[in-house]
Order: sequence, then C-alpha cells, then structure tokens
Amino acid sequence: MEPVERVTRHFQEELEQLKTRLLEMGGLAEENVRLAVQGLVDRDRSVIERVLAGDEPINRLHIEIDSRCFKLFALYQPMAADLRTIVAAVKINTDLERVGDLAVNIAQAAQRYATHPPVKKLIDIPVMAEIAQNMLRDSLDAFVRRDIDLAQHVLDEDDRLDALKTQIFRELLTYMLQDPSTIEPALDLILVSRHLERIGDHATNVAEDVIFIVSARDVRHGVQGRP
Amino acid sequence: MEPVERVTRHFQEELEQLKTRLLEMGGLAEENVRLAVQGLVDRDRSVIERVLAGDEPINRLHIEIDSRCFKLFALYQPMAADLRTIVAAVKINTDLERVGDLAVNIAQAAQRYATHPPVKKLIDIPVMAEIAQNMLRDSLDAFVRRDIDLAQHVLDEDDRLDALKTQIFRELLTYMLQDPSTIEPALDLILVSRHLERIGDHATNVAEDVIFIVSARDVRHGVQGRP
Repeated sequence: MEPVERVTRHFQEELEQLKTRLLEMGGLAEENVRLAVQGLVDRDRSVIERVLAGDEPINRLHIEIDSRCFKLFALYQPMAADLRTIVAAVKINTDLERVGDLAVNIAQAAQRYATHPPVKKLIDIPVMAEIAQNMLRDSLDAFVRRDIDLAQHVLDEDDRLDALKTQIFRELLTYMLQDPSTIEPALDLILVSRHLERIGDHATNVAEDVIFIVSARDVRHGVQGRP
Repeated sequence: MEPVERVTRHFQEELEQLKTRLLEMGGLAEENVRLAVQGLVDRDRSVIERVLAGDEPINRLHIEIDSRCFKLFALYQPMAADLRTIVAAVKINTDLERVGDLAVNIAQAAQRYATHPPVKKLIDIPVMAEIAQNMLRDSLDAFVRRDIDLAQHVLDEDDRLDALKTQIFRELLTYMLQDPSTIEPALDLILVSRHLERIGDHATNVAEDVIFIVSARDVRHGVQGRP
C-alpha cells in the first residue's frame, strides 16, 4: 500500500471511531433525559438519583472526544469536507455535554417537584421530552449519515417544541394564579419545559452543523453564506 | 524573507485579526446585556427595542469568525498552541453568539415586565448583570493575553453569580406566595436571573478554554487531562 493511501485509511478509521464515540455520548445524554423525565412523572427518587449520578460517563466522553479531534487536526491536517466534519464534531461534543447537564437540571427539578403534591397530569412534558429526544437522535443520525433531509426535519421539529413550551407556560400560569399552593411545583415544571426546549436548541445546532458539513452552506441566522 | 517566515508572519497577522474580531463580538454582546438590563430597570421601551434589533451585527460576526477559523485551519495547518487557540476560537465564537441571544431573551422579559407594576427594587439583578459582564470581558481579555490568573478569577466569580441567583429566586418566591399579582412579573425576573447565570456559564467556558490553550490542561469536569 502507498504511504498516502495508508494515511488516508488511518484517517478514515479514526474518523469512524470519532463518530461512534459521538453517537455513544448522544445515546447516554438521550437516555439521561428520558430517565430524568420518567423520574419527574413517576416521582421516582431512585430514577432521579441515577440521572444525578450518571453525568460522569458523559463528561469523560466529552474530554476524550475533544482529544480525538485535536489528534485528527494535528496528525492529518484535514481539508474541505473532512475539516468541516471535525470542526463540527468539536461543536457537537459541546452540545451533547450541555444536553447531559440539562438532564441533570431536569432531575434536580424533579427532585424538588416530588416534595410537593403534583400540580397536574404531566401529559405535555413527556410529549416535549419525546420530541426533544427524537430531535437529538435524528440530528446525530443525520451527522453520521450526512443526511440533509433528516437535518432539515430536526429544524422543523424545533417549532413544535417551542409551541408546546409556550402552551405549558400559559397553563401553569393559570394554575399559579388560581391557587398559590401550586406556585413552587409549577415553577419547577416551567423550568423543566425550558430545559427541554434548550435540548431541542442543541439538536438544532447539530442539524445546522450537518447542513454546513454536507453543503458548505451556512443556514444559521437565515444567512446563506459560504466559508 | 524566507517563504516559511512569510507564511508564519501571515498566520500571526490572521490570528491577531481573529482575536480582534472576537473582542469586537464580545464587546457587542456585553453592551447588549448592559442595555437589556438597563431597559429592564428603567422600564425603557426604546432601550429594549435597541437590544431586540441589535443582535444582527453579532450574528454576522459569528459567521465571519467561523469562516476565518476555517481559513486558518485549511491554509496554515496550525499545530500545538496555535491549533488549540483556533479550536478555542471556534468554541468562544459559539459562546459569544449565545450571549447575544441571551441579551435578546433578557430584553424580551424586560418588555413583558414593563407591562406590570414593578415587583421590587431590582438591586440584585443589576449586580448579577455587572458580575456577568465583567466575567465576559475578563474571559476574553484572558484569551487575548493568555492570562491564566485572570481566567481563574472568572471561574471563581461564577460561584458568586450562582449564589445571587439562588438568593433572588428565594426572595421572588416569597413575593409570589404573599401576593399573586406579582406572579407574572416575578416569573420574568426569575428568567432574567437565569439568563444572567447562563451568561456567566459562557464566560466560564471561555475561561476554561484559555487555561487549556495556555497550559494544555483540561480543567473541565474537575479532570486534569492532557490532549
């Protein structure tokens, strides 16, 4: 095998490993979001505790993935689409780490929420959580498969998430105004819905990165720039 | 001049321009945070409008800085500290763009807040805003000057910001429980204090990046890794 060919093969192998690690991290973050919301709905302290303790593997992957990106930059000096992919990986890594933190924030709110009588049937919050988790999974699948259509689907879903957040806020505000005993637990549900909205924002960031990697087209801020 | 020397000089010039642009963007974001809080405290709709309209230059810089980073990666294939600096610039760029968005979120809350009678003297919120703005400025100065002590100072200030946020939350909760007419405006103040806390988090991210650039030491998640 020619030396150049061997370097290319090594680079592609390392790139595949990087993607696998990002998927792994995304899976852990998604699972923690699911558990945190389950802990909130079921008022299950043992599930909540698991989320609070479960951020550590995500943080370890965060550091490992950053290292892998540096190694790829330094050893292979990638160009064009490969360069865009690794820069995107650095950003996606940051987004996933924040999703892990948000799962912890949801678990903390769930912990407080469980100390009060429940405010309402939490139907909308699990719906929000499901949309946010699907957005996260789809955005990472879109990254790995370089699938622009799937990335675009994630961007569309973000509007649904925002609409649900606004609806939940209005409903909870009505409860708070009618019955002050609901103020404290309702505040926690408002926070949870905002955490879920932000998880959707991070998935949106990933989806925008995917469109940029594949098409070198910048869809952020409604601008159609070229790097 | 030797060709290699010329390339190095060009690279250093481009790197300086990149830093200047990041400082410019940080200055705009910081000014928008200041104006948004001023609009909240003074109930000044014209100031609030300025912030809502003022996010556009920040978004343009966001895209321009990303382009510059790609150019530096592709043309100069930087190594070691230079590589770490440019990867950090990509991350800092994302952080500053989010700070700009958070200034807009504060302005939106200020807009709603101005439609209700004021809940309380807003002494703590401007104090939080000042700490967050100083953290942001210090973190960027630390980046440009490669000043680890200043970066460490930013990390320390984040604890003060979190403590203030908790104190403001408790105080506002008391008002809401005593007088339901304060619920809606108090909710907006709670959101503003959380937005300010997140601005502090972004400054903290920048400070951690600075420590990593200068010492190649990863202080995130309490881990002392090496890339």
